[in-house]
Amino acid sequence: MNKIKQISSYLTQHNLDAAFITNPDNVFYVSGFRSNPHERLLGVVVFQEAEPLMICPNMEVPDAKAAGWAFDVVGHQDTDHPWKLLKDAIIGKGIVISNLAIEKSHMTVERLEALQELFPLASFARLDDQLNSMRVIKDENELEILRQAAKYADYAIEVGVNEIAEGKTELEILTAIELALKKKGISHMSFDTMVLSGPKTASPHGKPGDRKIQKGDFVLFDLGVIYKGYCSDITRTVSFGEPTDSQREVYETVRKAEQDAVNAVKPGVRAMDLDKIARDVITKAGYGEFFTHRLGHGLGISVHEFPSITGINDMQLTEGMVFTIEPGIYDPSITGVRIEDDLVVTKDGVEILTKYPKELVIIPTGN
Amino acid sequence: MNKIKQISSYLTQHNLDAAFITNPDNVFYVSGFRSNPHERLLGVVVFQEAEPLMICPNMEVPDAKAAGWAFDVVGHQDTDHPWKLLKDAIIGKGIVISNLAIEKSHMTVERLEALQELFPLASFARLDDQLNSMRVIKDENELEILRQAAKYADYAIEVGVNEIAEGKTELEILTAIELALKKKGISHMSFDTMVLSGPKTASPHGKPGDRKIQKGDFVLFDLGVIYKGYCSDITRTVSFGEPTDSQREVYETVRKAEQDAVNAVKPGVRAMDLDKIARDVITKAGYGEFFTHRLGHGLGISVHEFPSITGINDMQLTEGMVFTIEPGIYDPSITGVRIEDDLVVTKDGVEILTKYPKELVIIPTGN
Repeated sequence: MNKIKQISSYLTQHNLDAAFITNPDNVFYVSGFRSNPHERLLGVVVFQEAEPLMICPNMEVPDAKAAGWAFDVVGHQDTDHPWKLLKDAIIGKGIVISNLAIEKSHMTVERLEALQELFPLASFARLDDQLNSMRVIKDENELEILRQAAKYADYAIEVGVNEIAEGKTELEILTAIELALKKKGISHMSFDTMVLSGPKTASPHGKPGDRKIQKGDFVLFDLGVIYKGYCSDITRTVSFGEPTDSQREVYETVRKAEQDAVNAVKPGVRAMDLDKIARDVITKAGYGEFFTHRLGHGLGISVHEFPSITGINDMQLTEGMVFTIEPGIYDPSITGVRIEDDLVVTKDGVEILTKYPKELVIIPTGN
Repeated sequence: MNKIKQISSYLTQHNLDAAFITNPDNVFYVSGFRSNPHERLLGVVVFQEAEPLMICPNMEVPDAKAAGWAFDVVGHQDTDHPWKLLKDAIIGKGIVISNLAIEKSHMTVERLEALQELFPLASFARLDDQLNSMRVIKDENELEILRQAAKYADYAIEVGVNEIAEGKTELEILTAIELALKKKGISHMSFDTMVLSGPKTASPHGKPGDRKIQKGDFVLFDLGVIYKGYCSDITRTVSFGEPTDSQREVYETVRKAEQDAVNAVKPGVRAMDLDKIARDVITKAGYGEFFTHRLGHGLGISVHEFPSITGINDMQLTEGMVFTIEPGIYDPSITGVRIEDDLVVTKDGVEILTKYPKELVIIPTGN
C-alpha cells in the first residue's frame, strides 16, 4: 500500500481533498486488484489522511478482497446508482470534496459531468502526471516480473521460429505459439500476436492470415505476454532460406540501428536522442522513408505507457524506466524487418530483458 | 455511407456544425474502418453539408482507404501535432466550429480540453444518444453478420462439450475451442472465453485455470466470437455425469427463467419487464439471492452495448434490437448455472440467433 501513501502525500502537497482513480491499470497499480469492469463503475478513492476506499461491481467484491485490498469496498448492483453510493461513502468518512484529482487522460466527459453533479462546487485537477511519474519508474519487484515476462516472450519467439516450415500458414504458427504459452500458464498476450510473412512483413500493422510460408520469405514475429499483470513485447524477423543481398542489407541496417540505440541507453540521455541515433543509421543507409514510426514506447502494466521514445520527447531517462527499442524498415520492394527489445535503464547503463539472438536467423528450407 | 448522412441530418436538425467521432467502434460503424489506435488520434469528422474527413496514424491511411473510406484522410506521424492537423483540415473546408458534437461517454477529459483549446469559443454537445439510437437497431446486413457470429458461437459450444473428459483442465478445453475456431477463420473472441467447472461455476466472473474436470461437475461455457466486426455471446452449462436432484433443479429453474423471458420478447415490451419475468421465476424457486446480475445486454459491434436489460430500464423494445438474455443461479452449495442466448426483436416477436440446445446435456463419464 506504499503507492496509496505516495498519492496521499501528493494530495496533501497540492491541497487536493481526494483522488479518484478509475483507469483499470491504475486501479491494479495502487490496489493489486485487476478487473475489467466494462461500462460499470470501478474506482479507488484516495484521501490525504483517511483510509482509501474502493467502489466496484458487487459480484467482484470478494475478488477485490482476495487480491489483497484491505480497506472498505463499496459494492454496487446493476440496479444501484453507483455515483450516489460513492458520494455517501465519502460523506460517511466526514470528508468534503472541494478539489478532486482525476485521470484526465482516462476519465470520460460523461463521468466528469457525473462527478460535477455530485460535487457541484468542486474543482478537478489532473492526477495523470503523478501516476505516470510513479509508474514510469519500476521497483525491483516490478522488474523481476518484467524479466520473467520477457523470458516468456523469448520462449514464444523460439517456438515460432521452430514452427516455420514451407506451406504452414501464419495463423497456424501463431496458434502453436499461443498454445505453447498456455501450457506454461500464460493465458493472455499483451496484444494480438503478429506473425507476418513475405510481402506482409512490409506492413507494420499487418494481420496474420492464411498466407503460406514460402522459400525466400522473411517472417516477422511481434508479440508479448501478460505475466502477473505486466507486459512484455518483442519483435524478431527471421529468414526462411538464404536471404538476398538486399534483404540482408535491410536486416543488418535495422540490427545496427537497434543495437546502437540500445548501447546508448543510460540515465541522462533523452528519449529523442535514442530515436535520432537509430533513425540516423537507417537514413544514412538510404531507408529513412521506410522507418515510419517512433523508436519505442514504455512498457509495464500497459503495453504502451511512458516514456514514449519519439523524436520530439526530450524526457531524460532515469534508473528504473522500462521501454522498448524497435526500429524497422518496411520497403515493399525488398522486405520488412523490425527488431525490438525490452530494456530497463540501470544506474549506469542498460539491462536488456529480451534475450533472443539478434544475428539474422536463417532457417534451412530443406532443399 | 448512409450512416454518415444520418449523422449529417442530425447535425442540421440540432444546429451543430460538426460531429467528432473517436470511439473505434463508432468509427468502424460509420466508416467501415476498424482500428485500435491505442493512444494515437483516430477519428471521423462529420459535417452538415461538407464531405466528412478522417484523421488517423499515417501508417494506417492505406488500410482506411482499403476498408472503403472514400473521403479525405489526414494522416499523422508520431512527431506531428495531430490536433493542429485536424484543425487545419477543418479550416481548409471553410468551416467554423461553434457547436461540436462529441461522444461524452467515450471522449476523455484531456481530449475535450485539447478541443477546447483548438476551438475556444465552441460549445460541446452530446452525440452518444444519437449514435446509440442508430446502433441499437440493426439493419438486415448487420443481422446477417450477427446470425453467422451466433453460428460460430454454437459451434464453439459443440466443440467444448465434445472436449469434456475426466482429468482434462479448463484451459485445455478452452484452447481446443479457440483452435477449432481459428481453423474456421475466427481470430478474435468477443471477450475472454470462460470454461468453468465444478464449484467454479458458482463464480459469475471466474477465470479458467488448471482445475481438472471430475465426475459430477457442471461445466459452464461463456464465449463469443467476433465476425466481420460483430460479436456473439453464448452461455451453456452441461453436466459431466448424472446430476444430483438439486443440481437438476437449479438447471431447470434457470432454463425456465431464460425461456420465459425469451418467449416474452416482442416490440413494445420493456427491458425491465424481461428482467422481472426471469427474476420472478428464480425468486419463486427460492434462488433469488443467487441471481446477482442483470438479465442481459445489447450486442453488436460491442459485446456490451444498448439496450441494457436491467430491472430499471424502461426502454421499449423495437424491431431490430439485438441483445442477450442470460439469467443465472450461483449457489455455492449446489452449482452455478447460466444459460444465455442472443436474439433479435422481430416485427411481432423474436428470432433466436444462438441455437445450441437448452435441454440439460448430460455427458456420460464412462463408468
